[in-house]
Amino acid sequence: MRYLATISYDGSLFDGYQIQKKGRTIQGEIQKVLTMINSKNEVIIHASGRTDAKVHALKQKIHFDLDKEFSCDDLKKSVNSLLPEDIYFREIDIVSDSFHARYDVKAKEYIYMINLGEYDPLKQKYIFQYNRRLDVFEIERALKYLEGTHNFKSFSASDDKESYERTIIEAKVIRDIKNIDILTISFLGTGFLRYMVRNMIGTLIEIGEGKRKSEDIIKIIESEDRTKAGPTAKPEGLYLKDVLY
Amino acid sequence: MRYLATISYDGSLFDGYQIQKKGRTIQGEIQKVLTMINSKNEVIIHASGRTDAKVHALKQKIHFDLDKEFSCDDLKKSVNSLLPEDIYFREIDIVSDSFHARYDVKAKEYIYMINLGEYDPLKQKYIFQYNRRLDVFEIERALKYLEGTHNFKSFSASDDKESYERTIIEAKVIRDIKNIDILTISFLGTGFLRYMVRNMIGTLIEIGEGKRKSEDIIKIIESEDRTKAGPTAKPEGLYLKDVLY
Repeated sequence: MRYLATISYDGSLFDGYQIQKKGRTIQGEIQKVLTMINSKNEVIIHASGRTDAKVHALKQKIHFDLDKEFSCDDLKKSVNSLLPEDIYFREIDIVSDSFHARYDVKAKEYIYMINLGEYDPLKQKYIFQYNRRLDVFEIERALKYLEGTHNFKSFSASDDKESYERTIIEAKVIRDIKNIDILTISFLGTGFLRYMVRNMIGTLIEIGEGKRKSEDIIKIIESEDRTKAGPTAKPEGLYLKDVLY
Repeated sequence: MRYLATISYDGSLFDGYQIQKKGRTIQGEIQKVLTMINSKNEVIIHASGRTDAKVHALKQKIHFDLDKEFSCDDLKKSVNSLLPEDIYFREIDIVSDSFHARYDVKAKEYIYMINLGEYDPLKQKYIFQYNRRLDVFEIERALKYLEGTHNFKSFSASDDKESYERTIIEAKVIRDIKNIDILTISFLGTGFLRYMVRNMIGTLIEIGEGKRKSEDIIKIIESEDRTKAGPTAKPEGLYLKDVLY
């Protein structure tokens, strides 16, 4: 029986999503629990994609097969009672055996949060503490140049070897009316290369600082050269917000 | 030269405010940094009061003496550059030598945050994950019985030996319009006994569950008996919000 689960996690204390020989991973912790529930027959989970160390997820999606059919509510309760406090199964549904959490992705949304106000020691693992002003209007203009189908090689980790073409459906700034110091940048896209969001954010921050102009994005994309874009932003402000099928 | 500092900290990874032989404490981390700045002459800091392990502070106040007069801005920058990421000096002012951060307190505000909605793995160190409904109206009625000058022995840690009389100036519920699942309870008082806020919260939760009535607060106060009140709520939802002089 194949199950699709919507999960949240606090990435702070994880060495990333993907299971490794050493280190605490989201995949490792979940597989341990599901294998226990599956009468110790090993369960492998498949996510919509990996998240890096310290990156959070609000609605990551994973699928997995269990030998038995469980009530989704009961399964959710069992799993959550066994998982560590920083991972949570929000929802479980039964899906067809042909469903695949990675191959069937239609779109994903990432958000990146930046604190432009004073340093906040209670949020340093959840919001990038930039703690200075940025030209948000210029960042908004730059986001429009990132939208569409492009070769995003300039924004990808150098060791990627697949196709670099991706489509960003929407890239926008979300303002928090209650706290104007918090800048949230959202990207909705068909797929993202490794470090792509963090590399775009690093470049957008340089645009907000006035070091680059918004229209420089066009040249950076055309160059297909990682060294032309800005630095990789810290992982702490990044959230996988949702995955659409 | 005597300095008064307003500090914030994330209590998650601390064994409380007060310095101990073993364990990571807020007082310990700050004294290490200030002693370094004070040419290695030991600096002792005095807070408005202690906070327990895992309790956060938004505006805790401390005073300390340094041998030299520093510009408050420069001192703030130096201290923050040397402190760990989970403590931050928000403001430093020079005060008279007779000022005392604990003895001169006029009032303190504590808040306690409770999530009545679904479990949130990203907030479990910052908001108590109750994850069920509570009768907030009944809690609001109970808060009115806590206001005023009373003997709070029923809500204090049993090993306290001083006077148990304290004044709660205002006790209220603060609603978050953006997230109605988050219940914040605020207490403004002239002083608080050890565990007093957490013991009041434990009792208020039982009132919100319907296990007790709001007017039971009167009998609990009159009993001067710790066993008559509810359990001690978890530290994770508690914040020292402000200290007034």
